[in-house]
Formats: sequence, C-alpha cells, structure tokens
Amino acid sequence: MSKSSPVTIVEVGPRDGFQSIGPFIPTATKIALIGRLHDAGLRRMEITSFVSPSALPQLADAEDVVSAAATLHDLDSQVLVPTLRHAERALAAGARHLSAVLSVSERHNIGNVRRTPLESAADYAAIIAAASPDIRIRLNLATSFDCPHVGCIGEEAVLGLLEILLAATTDVEVALCDTTGRADPRHVRSLFASAQARFPEVSAWAFHGHDTFGLGAANALAAWDAGVRVFDAAIAGLGGCPFAPGATGNVATEDLVWMFSRMGADTGIELDRLLAVARNVADLPGAQVGGRVRQAMEARACLAVAQ
Amino acid sequence: MSKSSPVTIVEVGPRDGFQSIGPFIPTATKIALIGRLHDAGLRRMEITSFVSPSALPQLADAEDVVSAAATLHDLDSQVLVPTLRHAERALAAGARHLSAVLSVSERHNIGNVRRTPLESAADYAAIIAAASPDIRIRLNLATSFDCPHVGCIGEEAVLGLLEILLAATTDVEVALCDTTGRADPRHVRSLFASAQARFPEVSAWAFHGHDTFGLGAANALAAWDAGVRVFDAAIAGLGGCPFAPGATGNVATEDLVWMFSRMGADTGIELDRLLAVARNVADLPGAQVGGRVRQAMEARACLAVAQ
Repeated sequence: MSKSSPVTIVEVGPRDGFQSIGPFIPTATKIALIGRLHDAGLRRMEITSFVSPSALPQLADAEDVVSAAATLHDLDSQVLVPTLRHAERALAAGARHLSAVLSVSERHNIGNVRRTPLESAADYAAIIAAASPDIRIRLNLATSFDCPHVGCIGEEAVLGLLEILLAATTDVEVALCDTTGRADPRHVRSLFASAQARFPEVSAWAFHGHDTFGLGAANALAAWDAGVRVFDAAIAGLGGCPFAPGATGNVATEDLVWMFSRMGADTGIELDRLLAVARNVADLPGAQVGGRVRQAMEARACLAVAQ
Repeated sequence: MSKSSPVTIVEVGPRDGFQSIGPFIPTATKIALIGRLHDAGLRRMEITSFVSPSALPQLADAEDVVSAAATLHDLDSQVLVPTLRHAERALAAGARHLSAVLSVSERHNIGNVRRTPLESAADYAAIIAAASPDIRIRLNLATSFDCPHVGCIGEEAVLGLLEILLAATTDVEVALCDTTGRADPRHVRSLFASAQARFPEVSAWAFHGHDTFGLGAANALAAWDAGVRVFDAAIAGLGGCPFAPGATGNVATEDLVWMFSRMGADTGIELDRLLAVARNVADLPGAQVGGRVRQAMEARACLAVAQ
C-alpha cells in the first residue's frame, strides 16, 4: 500500500473468514494464504484471533500465525482479542496491533463473552493500560447498527458507549461494525457523521460490513461518502454461516477493490493476484463464500449483447 | 404504489429476465407471474418485448402478454421496442407505454439491430411520430457507461446522442443503462448530474443497472443520490447469461426493495409477497438468478453470533 493510497482495505478473511470454516485449515495453508494476500498488495490484515482454543479450535494456532506474519515485509498484522486475558496472550506471542472488540448490544455481548458492554469496556481499558504505547489499537464496535437479537441499534447507544471507551485513549482506530449486514446506506452515513462530529479527536474511523443482504458495497460507499477510508473485507466473501448456505458473510475483498478501483480510489491491491487467492480460498473445504467479482471474472467470456 | 411513493421500481424481469431463459416459459406461467408481481405491489413493469420471434422465441407471445396485463388494475405496462416496425406491432397489440432502446456504443448497437446509433435515433423519431400523444415513452440508452466491446463510454457520447434524441420529444423518461454492470458509483453520479444539468426539460430520469460485479445496489444508491427515483430491477436477479453461471444479471428487485425500504424510501411493494414470487421464478427451468435478500431470508434462522 503506497502511503498516498486513499483507501486502506483490512483483509479480515484469516480471522473473520477462517473462524466460520469448520474443518481445520492446516497452519501452513493459512500462512501460505496470508503470504499470497500480502503478495497481492494487502498491507493490513486481521490474521487471527486469540480466543479459547476449545471454543474456536480453528484459530488454536494463533501464535504460529503471528510469528509467520511477522516475517512479511511492511505488513500491519492485527489480531482480534475479546478480553484482557487473551490480549495478554497476544502480546506475549509478539502481536503489535490489537483489535479489541465488544458489542453495543448487551444481549449480543453477553452471548459472545458473558459480560455486559460496560464490563467489556472496563476490560478494554485494562487492555489499553497493559499495552505499551507502541502497540497499535483497533477498537471494533460490533452491532453498531443492528443486532441479530434485538434489531436496530439506536445511535445514542453507540455514541454513549464510545464516550466511555474513548476515556481510555483516543489514539485508536474505531470500526463501526455492521454485524448482521442489515445496516442500510442512510444509517451508515448518519452514524459515521454523528460519531465523527462528536469525537473529532479519534485517530481514524473504519467500517466493517457484511454482504448478507446485498448491501456490502453500497454500505461501504456510504461510509466512503462520510469520509471513512479504512474498510474491512474478507477474501472471497468468507464469513457466512456454515449451516445456512447463501447467508453470505463479510463483503468480499475483491468486490471492494473492484468498486474503489473503478471509482479511481487506489487500494494498492492487484486484482488479478487477489482473484487467484480468492479462487483457492473458495475451494477450501467448508468455505461459505460470496461476492460477485470472482464469478463475473470467471465468466467474462460471456459478453452481454442485449440491453 | 401510492402516489406519494418516493421510489418507483420498474420490474423488468418479464422482459430482460425471461429473454435470458432458454426453455420456453408457457404464456400462462408468464401471465400468472406478472399477476403475482402486481399483487406484491408492483405498478410498473416491462412485461415483454416486440422483437423478431425467430430471433427471440421466448417472447413470441408478446401480444397475449400485453392483452393479459391490460386487465390488471392500475398497472403501467411498458413493452420494449427496438425498431419502428416492432413499435407498430406493439401499438397494434394495444400497448400504451413503449420502451424504446438504442445503444450509445456504435458497435453494440450494430450488434443488436444492425444499424448505427444515429440510424436508430432516426427510427426513434419515427416511433415518436407514429405514437399518439397519449402513448407514454421510455427511452433506454444502453451502454451509457460501459460497452462489452469497447469498454468505458465517455459522457460526451451519451449527452451528444441525447441531444439528438430529445429533439423528437422531451416528454419522455430517459433511462441511462449500465448494460455490463461495470459502471461504478462515481460514474453513475457524474453522468446523471451532467445529463440533468444539460437537459432539465426531460420529464424523468431512470437507472437500469446490473449486479454482475456486485455494484447493483451501490450504483442504484449513487443514482438515488443524484436525484433519480425510477429504477429498473428484475425479480430474483434474472438476466444472467445461461452460458456463464455466476455472471448475474439485473439487480434483483427484492434487493432494491430491501435497500430502499431500510432507507425509509417506500416502494409500495410488499417484500414477503415479492420473495414468494422470486422463489418460484428461481425455480423456472433455465433461470440464472442472483441477488442476496432471497437467500438471506431463507437462511434467516442463522443468527450471527460472532462479530
């Protein structure tokens, strides 16, 4: 990614994508795929998560993945850490960029980590205190727009929680996450505008979107319109639910690269190389994939002749 | 559709969708599906096309479809007519709303109707002259953004052709069509802004988009931002190429209804009824379908529990 690149894509497939895949992906395969994503031009990735290996066996090799990714030139590798305990494990393993996460929705947060958002906020403050100043921090606010349990999330709930969280530090990149894919462009624009107006001291804002209802690209466009320049995406649109084919997951990296490139906003990513990786990822046993560009490019010999 | 509805969706599945399906759909099935789309709230549809039956046997029953659709209450049925000769057939069959089409790209237009865009423009003027003043006119400009043969289309080519076409009448709805699905939101906003500024006398503007590269919804959002309030879409995302699975076609009606409804822009369409039709359309032999909302709703029992 050149320093002047106007859009930064954070590849979250190795974390948000792989965690949705049942059959264990050999560690060497994960490391090879991360290397090829790096070759395609990606310079930020969420490479794994430090969580309980019994709860998420797919990511039990987090230490090995962190070590391997550290050898890739100029790669900013972030790791997801849901609690202080796991953040300490990540730091001990050599992680330099922590991606903290909590959910605005109380019910969703309790379902994920058995604590309230305020309890998670206290834990987040402890993570900030435990990390040395050179450790970069990404703060993910899950269910910032909509919760699978309670539906639409009001803006004030997000802003009120952010107020508490930003007391720990404002030297942080804040990602507002559309966990369910049910956010719409108007909501995305509105919440980012409100958040940026209320917290101008935040270092950077990011959008994490899902394509479940076909609005992955439209919502990213809405966030772009609001001034956001950092976008999470997963190669091949990984991240669907293995029990519900068609309930696709993260917006596909290749779809966002396509959109932003067509718009003249360079991502620093080579689409052809990225698509080669996407095809291999789509072939992983148990992978639920999405996105459009991969299939369209495979079918590009078919030229439209009608209107 | 209530008169105050801020978004009008033109269902083009019975034309742009059905024409992409190889096996003949029985006329009674077509008429039944049009009736159910009407039941779901659609009040504008492109129900068929008058073309050479030998070139497009799927639409050889255009007269029967026009007669049947005329019995549906308050339905504005438009029929696609590529030439004066076919427009005369449509009018003789009782069509009240003609959807003329020509392509900005010379190569594309020659491929479709064996004449240059200027020759088609003269034919269009003859259609206007042949139609009585109470016949409504939609003018579709195919390849307004991108051509499968020559790539990106410059704005001046579109505006220059429009200048000629609007000499026939300005009492027309002009649709700028993203034939290939390769338009991007910046281009969509820019072209609509330029066209509206240059031709403020045009009655209405519409956007016809495809989802081939995943930008169906994002480009519709861009057109909406530019003030467009009429959008073509096809039930179940029909309109792909039967020889290239995955090269999806028109943006799915249900996806646009979802997006605009979530944004608070009423379409007058009941999503549940629409989805029931979409499921049946997806089951038509030979149908190439797309869209996200249909599959997401089928899988809605799967609730996201991770970020």
